[in-house]
Amino acid sequence: MVHETVTMEGHLIDSDILRRVFNHIVEEGGGFEVLEFRVGTTNQEPSFARLSVTAPAPETLDRILERLNYLGAAAEVADARFAPAEADGILPDDFYSTTNFDTFVRIAGRWQAVADQKMDSAIVLGGGAPRCVKQGQVKRGEPVALRGPGIRARPPERSRDFSVFGFMSNDVSAETNKGIVIAGTAREMARTRKAGQGIVVVAGPAVVHSGGDAALARLVRDGWVDVILTGNAFATHDLEKSILKTSLGVCQMSGRAVEGGSRNHLYAINAVNRAGGIRPAVESGLVTSGVMYEAVRRGVRFVLAGSIRDDGPLKDVITDVVEAQKAYVAALEGAGMCLMLASALHSIAVGNLLPARVRTVCVDITESVPVKLSNRGTLHAVGLVTDVGYFLERLEAELQVDGA
Amino acid sequence: MVHETVTMEGHLIDSDILRRVFNHIVEEGGGFEVLEFRVGTTNQEPSFARLSVTAPAPETLDRILERLNYLGAAAEVADARFAPAEADGILPDDFYSTTNFDTFVRIAGRWQAVADQKMDSAIVLGGGAPRCVKQGQVKRGEPVALRGPGIRARPPERSRDFSVFGFMSNDVSAETNKGIVIAGTAREMARTRKAGQGIVVVAGPAVVHSGGDAALARLVRDGWVDVILTGNAFATHDLEKSILKTSLGVCQMSGRAVEGGSRNHLYAINAVNRAGGIRPAVESGLVTSGVMYEAVRRGVRFVLAGSIRDDGPLKDVITDVVEAQKAYVAALEGAGMCLMLASALHSIAVGNLLPARVRTVCVDITESVPVKLSNRGTLHAVGLVTDVGYFLERLEAELQVDGA
Amino acid sequence: MVHETVTMEGHLIDSDILRRVFNHIVEEGGGFEVLEFRVGTTNQEPSFARLSVTAPAPETLDRILERLNYLGAAAEVADARFAPAEADGILPDDFYSTTNFDTFVRIAGRWQAVADQKMDSAIVLGGGAPRCVKQGQVKRGEPVALRGPGIRARPPERSRDFSVFGFMSNDVSAETNKGIVIAGTAREMARTRKAGQGIVVVAGPAVVHSGGDAALARLVRDGWVDVILTGNAFATHDLEKSILKTSLGVCQMSGRAVEGGSRNHLYAINAVNRAGGIRPAVESGLVTSGVMYEAVRRGVRFVLAGSIRDDGPLKDVITDVVEAQKAYVAALEGAGMCLMLASALHSIAVGNLLPARVRTVCVDITESVPVKLSNRGTLHAVGLVTDVGYFLERLEAELQVDGA
Amino acid sequence: MVHETVTMEGHLIDSDILRRVFNHIVEEGGGFEVLEFRVGTTNQEPSFARLSVTAPAPETLDRILERLNYLGAAAEVADARFAPAEADGILPDDFYSTTNFDTFVRIAGRWQAVADQKMDSAIVLGGGAPRCVKQGQVKRGEPVALRGPGIRARPPERSRDFSVFGFMSNDVSAETNKGIVIAGTAREMARTRKAGQGIVVVAGPAVVHSGGDAALARLVRDGWVDVILTGNAFATHDLEKSILKTSLGVCQMSGRAVEGGSRNHLYAINAVNRAGGIRPAVESGLVTSGVMYEAVRRGVRFVLAGSIRDDGPLKDVITDVVEAQKAYVAALEGAGMCLMLASALHSIAVGNLLPARVRTVCVDITESVPVKLSNRGTLHAVGLVTDVGYFLERLEAELQVDGA
Repeated sequence: MVHETVTMEGHLIDSDILRRVFNHIVEEGGGFEVLEFRVGTTNQEPSFARLSVTAPAPETLDRILERLNYLGAAAEVADARFAPAEADGILPDDFYSTTNFDTFVRIAGRWQAVADQKMDSAIVLGGGAPRCVKQGQVKRGEPVALRGPGIRARPPERSRDFSVFGFMSNDVSAETNKGIVIAGTAREMARTRKAGQGIVVVAGPAVVHSGGDAALARLVRDGWVDVILTGNAFATHDLEKSILKTSLGVCQMSGRAVEGGSRNHLYAINAVNRAGGIRPAVESGLVTSGVMYEAVRRGVRFVLAGSIRDDGPLKDVITDVVEAQKAYVAALEGAGMCLMLASALHSIAVGNLLPARVRTVCVDITESVPVKLSNRGTLHAVGLVTDVGYFLERLEAELQVDGA
Repeated sequence: MVHETVTMEGHLIDSDILRRVFNHIVEEGGGFEVLEFRVGTTNQEPSFARLSVTAPAPETLDRILERLNYLGAAAEVADARFAPAEADGILPDDFYSTTNFDTFVRIAGRWQAVADQKMDSAIVLGGGAPRCVKQGQVKRGEPVALRGPGIRARPPERSRDFSVFGFMSNDVSAETNKGIVIAGTAREMARTRKAGQGIVVVAGPAVVHSGGDAALARLVRDGWVDVILTGNAFATHDLEKSILKTSLGVCQMSGRAVEGGSRNHLYAINAVNRAGGIRPAVESGLVTSGVMYEAVRRGVRFVLAGSIRDDGPLKDVITDVVEAQKAYVAALEGAGMCLMLASALHSIAVGNLLPARVRTVCVDITESVPVKLSNRGTLHAVGLVTDVGYFLERLEAELQVDGA
Repeated sequence: MVHETVTMEGHLIDSDILRRVFNHIVEEGGGFEVLEFRVGTTNQEPSFARLSVTAPAPETLDRILERLNYLGAAAEVADARFAPAEADGILPDDFYSTTNFDTFVRIAGRWQAVADQKMDSAIVLGGGAPRCVKQGQVKRGEPVALRGPGIRARPPERSRDFSVFGFMSNDVSAETNKGIVIAGTAREMARTRKAGQGIVVVAGPAVVHSGGDAALARLVRDGWVDVILTGNAFATHDLEKSILKTSLGVCQMSGRAVEGGSRNHLYAINAVNRAGGIRPAVESGLVTSGVMYEAVRRGVRFVLAGSIRDDGPLKDVITDVVEAQKAYVAALEGAGMCLMLASALHSIAVGNLLPARVRTVCVDITESVPVKLSNRGTLHAVGLVTDVGYFLERLEAELQVDGA
Repeated sequence: MVHETVTMEGHLIDSDILRRVFNHIVEEGGGFEVLEFRVGTTNQEPSFARLSVTAPAPETLDRILERLNYLGAAAEVADARFAPAEADGILPDDFYSTTNFDTFVRIAGRWQAVADQKMDSAIVLGGGAPRCVKQGQVKRGEPVALRGPGIRARPPERSRDFSVFGFMSNDVSAETNKGIVIAGTAREMARTRKAGQGIVVVAGPAVVHSGGDAALARLVRDGWVDVILTGNAFATHDLEKSILKTSLGVCQMSGRAVEGGSRNHLYAINAVNRAGGIRPAVESGLVTSGVMYEAVRRGVRFVLAGSIRDDGPLKDVITDVVEAQKAYVAALEGAGMCLMLASALHSIAVGNLLPARVRTVCVDITESVPVKLSNRGTLHAVGLVTDVGYFLERLEAELQVDGA
């Protein structure tokens, strides 16, 4: 039997860390003894624990310690180890793979916060400061952090305030009172704006199909949205509606389809591309309403990522997905809150790029996208199973009351 | 090879009958020759066809003719055959099983319309007039129609008018513009009321969870609903909300759950049952708002069918499902339109009891219930994949414009 | 400010109890100080906590204490209070509403376990021993436990063993490796049988549609099933398949539909009812294969609960849902494990009747039923989003390896 | 009132064309008179119709004629008109937008078949022969067909043979007997291979999650698959399973998750990219099993399209989606059949690129993807709502019987 002593500090009970530590040890076949435990006597005070962890073999103990490490428990206090990337995009095999929790690296005896936190990335040391870099963007020779000592992730502490993110986080259900969640979302948006943080909207084409585009356009116009992350389909549907009053060839007044495939869809792309893109199409008077129109007018940043499904595409679309991912990352800087609206593809993409601390509301007509996001550890996330058109209309109404 | 001559008359092309006749013949291994075909020269005029059907064996020909018979094609003009029910609830094995299409039986040389049309029933002759009777309700000795000659079903002709039931029937999609379908539903409700027909609402508990109960209560108050078909859960949620301001123990102001299972649910049942039921609970001032409250006040008929899932149940619940089915049938008389709101159980139950001609809007958060109804041949049905709360709020707004 | 001291003992961290206690206090607006805390030094040892809870008002403190009570935290050690039921089915307003956790009532200074544990029930004292009774079954004058002191629920402790119920509990995902969960289910069934506990199968009609009935019939034949809880539709589909080789009129060899509604469905009911019910239909040689056939042959208990959706129904169906619920309760006695197979209605009904300790596997093609069960606090439950036909075929294969 | 005479020939009833012609005329506010109608007297013989179409205004008549044109009805026999593309990717506004039906263009008095048929494309004249070109690929100055006379689309005639594509086309249901559909799929694959046409597999990551990858790998090994169209995620999951025996970090033996995000996912990408890509990774012995392994060994063509969601990505991924689309198009040449397996993104992308005549089976755990494909007019498509792992295992078993 081998053993090791680990220590932890923080809201160990409240944030469900101690329970997970116990679980991991037992699951891996180890055992533990609590040497010392001081629970915070009040809600504000952190707790402290010191455990002796035992395992039948050194490899088992290593595996346990690595898992505890991800929960902020440190077995030994040593500097992190680094090794150079072998080639562009090729990491040393022993690389540390990040979570979306805030992470700290010990360099020369000092714990340093990692910048650009996002999951499934490498930690690269550049100019002395560690930051998260996607595997494909790591350059040959850059020092890459290795798993082992000197790295600590801090799981976000569950919010105690009375926002929806406090008591509804990770709930996914079609049986919630949506009005309450939407009202809470509106309050959170007001708070985010007041705090000077960004509000990001991720939107799928169903926003237009379901008629929620009108409300979203007004939210953009009124300054509630700082960034729009989407793809070709959403933008084209929105532009088609402004230019031709149809959506995928379906008349938006009568609901009746125009024969001939999606000619109107292609027509809209053609017209906007002829004008030179979305901005010139607005400026030239071709596009006179809609979400993209309001975004251009208001100077709201938008990024359109290409997909294999696209018609056209619009000139504004970044067809290289690696470049599109970089543009998404840049646009997410400073985000305090994220609304994911009826887009499986883009919501999961953005979920992969956001730190866990950003408050996220994911709206979809089925449980599957919210469940996926919740399974990926997006902690401050509320899943709302409802019609996105409903969500946007109610949200707008709430913001007019609460938001001003 | 055996053969037989059949004739058909009606909107054979328009209602997709001729195509299905051809299909059935070939699927069963037969062949056909068109002896005569006169297409209606205008939209109003019926078409006429005379076919010679051939088959390799007499049994095959019989099977083909039976299938064509369900489409209104008659091979021989003869009276229907009847045989007495062997015992209560036991039919002669050769019984004719009904569809939800209007059906005619030839008795003494005269075609008579079948009353109480509903699917999966027997046709019983009582007092000289044929009517649909559910298998379990047939009494010993009653004459039951046998399959074979003398019975014709008339598939409903697809509507040509510009209502949603004309061009959207049997469409099921989450990507429709819901506003258009809801506006069409409102227009249809106004038309139904003007025609003196009944509007039936089938409601599941999600109507209350999603906050749509307030709008539904106002629709009942304003006379838009003639019958409510539901179960114990919906009624209890609605009553709990009036009595305790919670739904399944979740506070409807804050969205926060009250610990202790569904105590409030049971409390509401207890209080209403102590009062003697829903009507006395309203009259005594215990219940002062909600759908059931407005139904009692307005004299709207409601039927609560029991289910194995029920708590309580409320005294008003008919716990015997055979009795409950009879009460549903009685309440459906005179229905011209039916709104099915977020209830798989009751919607499919009512779908089984309605003639195909009743115009039906089925609202659910997933495709599965609308798809099921559409597969069962509920023809004048529109499936709407959206949040039922959204549907009800928008419907109310539309009715205030269109409905007056 | 008012305050109260509460104590707790058990796997407070491991079973996530302490965290929930802290949460509840803060959510309700109270505060706390940890006066004493001893964590179990090993995995086997229980922990102990003594807290001082403060609140701004006595009502708030009461509410907090009630919530803590459901988690096993006791504020004062006093006997439980009882009051007589006012009338049949009418409880005193202050009744205690049960959870599905094992519950203890303090009577004359002694903690007594409550029998027939199930959620949303009253606790009735009969012959000196407390037991759970559904609201509707309580008789006038019986002593009913009131909320307040003297009642303690014990949340189940999360399993530490390496079964699927240990590490996968309350996971619901379509992206699991199903083979692993199914293998774990098979092992658990073998263990349950060895322990002399019952295995209950709850089945919906989709078991037959999806072709899983053949595997289920073999499981019944081979003694893997002790009780079948279902309704009219499943049994009729199964019987129709044996008698006519079709399911809802769809030929099970060719997949092609037989015209004429669901004549074959009604025919099967007619034939079985003429024979006098399912058992006589098997004994007379009318039914010669299928799940119900094997159940009759093996003497496996089955209960068919009626529903408003039913055709027929079969003579074996209990059409009164209150009676059907009682029959389900009786059949669930001694259950150690429950397989819920593609039936929303019956699965939720059974979920309401089972104590949390019974290990449950819920199989459905969508997330919604498993999510609902998991939200209701069915703790030892694994949700599996897959085709029920697949589940049954694989389960059978696993049982042949593991189960013997 | 204006009028025009149109003629049609083909299986007008059988393929549901005449009914749709009537519908379109009436929906647009026109009227019609049948001047001549000859129905094919047998199943093999085509029908012929001559109609006089009337409308209140010339614009209405134009719109009606355009819609009829898409159904193969020709009002005037004239050559198609062409106009040059204004710039790269910019069409003349009056461009004809294609369907996925086989299309013919009249040039110099002769009807010519359009090559590379796919929906939502332009028809470009190159070297005298017309072909479908995606909007973005049209080059400046190329002659683009305009809507109006001289273009005819031929809706596919519904198959009369006894394959699943004959009687189950466009059925989407979770309540089918899957065994029958899978057996039919196997027979169709055998037939396709015998006819020398290609079998395309479109695969999503759920194929690996659900454990269906083993069966798919064997199908590839045994020569049942000619092309694999997928993305980075599927390939990485498959490679991770070969290299590390996990999938997304979940051990495929025990089902237990490895802590630390998706380190194994990144590790697999790293290892394969270090080797130089998938082919070298197989050749060097790094990858020794799985779908991609068998594809490399057998020389099966695979195309990996990039997505904004990707980690890594693998070197084999085409990150530019426009290039990826072109590679998909090239790989689809000669396809006679397509299996779409649990991938919304890639299935809809491929649905957009396939002519309607290619027989398609779409397998997914929810109705939504099959419903979407069916709404887009993918005619010879069967939707199967089941677990993809089940589908693949059963398909393999069927092919061993039928396919040899």
